Amino acid sequence: MPVNALFAAHPSRWAIYQPALTAAFARAGVDVDLRQDFAPEAVDYIIYAPNSDLQDFRPYTRAKAVLNLWAGVEKIVGNTTLTQPLARMVDAGMTDGMVEWVLGHVMRHHLGMDQDIVNPTHRWQPHVPPLARDRPVTVLGLGELGTAAARAIAQVGFPVTGWSRSPKSIPGLTTHAGPEGLTQALKSAQILVLLLPDTPATTGILKADTLAMLPRGAMILNPGRGPLIDDDALIAALDSGQIGHATLDVFRTEPLPADHPFWRHPKVTVTPHIASETRPGSASDTIAENIRRGEAGEPFLYLVDRSRGY
Amino acid sequence: MPVNALFAAHPSRWAIYQPALTAAFARAGVDVDLRQDFAPEAVDYIIYAPNSDLQDFRPYTRAKAVLNLWAGVEKIVGNTTLTQPLARMVDAGMTDGMVEWVLGHVMRHHLGMDQDIVNPTHRWQPHVPPLARDRPVTVLGLGELGTAAARAIAQVGFPVTGWSRSPKSIPGLTTHAGPEGLTQALKSAQILVLLLPDTPATTGILKADTLAMLPRGAMILNPGRGPLIDDDALIAALDSGQIGHATLDVFRTEPLPADHPFWRHPKVTVTPHIASETRPGSASDTIAENIRRGEAGEPFLYLVDRSRGY
Repeated sequence: MPVNALFAAHPSRWAIYQPALTAAFARAGVDVDLRQDFAPEAVDYIIYAPNSDLQDFRPYTRAKAVLNLWAGVEKIVGNTTLTQPLARMVDAGMTDGMVEWVLGHVMRHHLGMDQDIVNPTHRWQPHVPPLARDRPVTVLGLGELGTAAARAIAQVGFPVTGWSRSPKSIPGLTTHAGPEGLTQALKSAQILVLLLPDTPATTGILKADTLAMLPRGAMILNPGRGPLIDDDALIAALDSGQIGHATLDVFRTEPLPADHPFWRHPKVTVTPHIASETRPGSASDTIAENIRRGEAGEPFLYLVDRSRGY
Repeated sequence: MPVNALFAAHPSRWAIYQPALTAAFARAGVDVDLRQDFAPEAVDYIIYAPNSDLQDFRPYTRAKAVLNLWAGVEKIVGNTTLTQPLARMVDAGMTDGMVEWVLGHVMRHHLGMDQDIVNPTHRWQPHVPPLARDRPVTVLGLGELGTAAARAIAQVGFPVTGWSRSPKSIPGLTTHAGPEGLTQALKSAQILVLLLPDTPATTGILKADTLAMLPRGAMILNPGRGPLIDDDALIAALDSGQIGHATLDVFRTEPLPADHPFWRHPKVTVTPHIASETRPGSASDTIAENIRRGEAGEPFLYLVDRSRGY
């Protein structure tokens, strides 16, 4: 007997995911009837994206789990009709892509590339950066993505400090935790990478007082979540020289509105939410593995802790 | 009895190197009298930069070795008055700096950063690159610098092919050698890194026929030597679309003349010979170690093979 899996994402995603999921189910050895439509009471698993029309989970009385296609769950975690277990997406391909974006932009700022890429006066002005070993980098957030990015940066030779809400020990990194550890994590960060989830505890974590804790001229990368930053405070810190540059991949409103000051600020680089892109093949393997686990009576991977919000 | 070491480099370097070398001699436990002037027949070692006024080595009858401060020896290796052993500079700090420049620009081209850094229309246009694992990179030259750069690129996940004149086997890399191996090395290279020495065998190695072996749209990084590239052939290949972009750190004439077409070509990035910068502290340790070896009767490190030219 196949299990019934409802595909509840934006309809445009079906053409990509139907073959990817079908192949992943075959690889995992699970027998799944995958459809975009079922009677709610017949559904065993909901494969879900938060921009789906499905927002009332109450009729899905038999569903064993909601398996999110997105890493972010902030748009669904507060839905009170959702009482089933909720699993985040952890996609090896997405993690690799995020690590590559972070490493690339860390190297870009470390080397001061922009002055060569944008060199309107065509002047030969040698600028030799310090070595990576003399450029401290801090990563806020030590989940899957933050830890992977921090490790990749450390591997190049940068001294890397990581910060998380609860204490973590990761070989090769200096770690700090909690509100009191945040000052320690920020004060040495010549480059700061934001890879925190968006929760009530992290919204606006980078604001006037925390920006002031960074060394003057620090560079900020935000591939995490738009609301982590107080936009007005960041612009003020860029204008005062406290912050040297910000490269932002995520925003409070996306696409970033055409009249947003980030677009034209000389010290801001906008990348259009490309750092973390789920790759359908590897993401489908994560979904298939969780269905296999559910059917085998094994614990689901990547369950969301509703009290923390991630 | 101290040994007499003549510092024969551009006079502007003395203020930097005198303290750095003195400290390195102390670390190495060698007793050295370091000066900018000695009677030639009293000199035991010549610490040398090819832009020094010293070009006739015949009076230095007692000198046991010429210890180059530069990695490149092409301006001195053909000097027929130089009969003493000649050692290249191999500086751990310089190697690290080169690796960082190469890795940074590989990541920049891999991620397509320029379209976000230079975005005059301020448009939100997501562009998701392939993962590093799907982006083949080739490094021409597997000396100290080429091998270190190739390893760092491979560590990020890129499939890396290396090419050298004589066969080499390096874990984690696909290697090819000799003229017949060059076609193999070039044909898969979406990003090509030039880290060859400048010798009669490598001058103009990248010319019309070898550029044509690359996949269409390949990107070129040259932190090696300016003469490796036939400039006119490169510009033609950029204009035809055969080559997607070239980021060049070294040139046949430096500083790059203001009227050189590379400055204004939309597919060329000029960096002002900053990829490989000797760091006086670590470079001085290399010099001190070779003096220690010379006095202990041990073989010198990094001797130049005159027949090969490097």
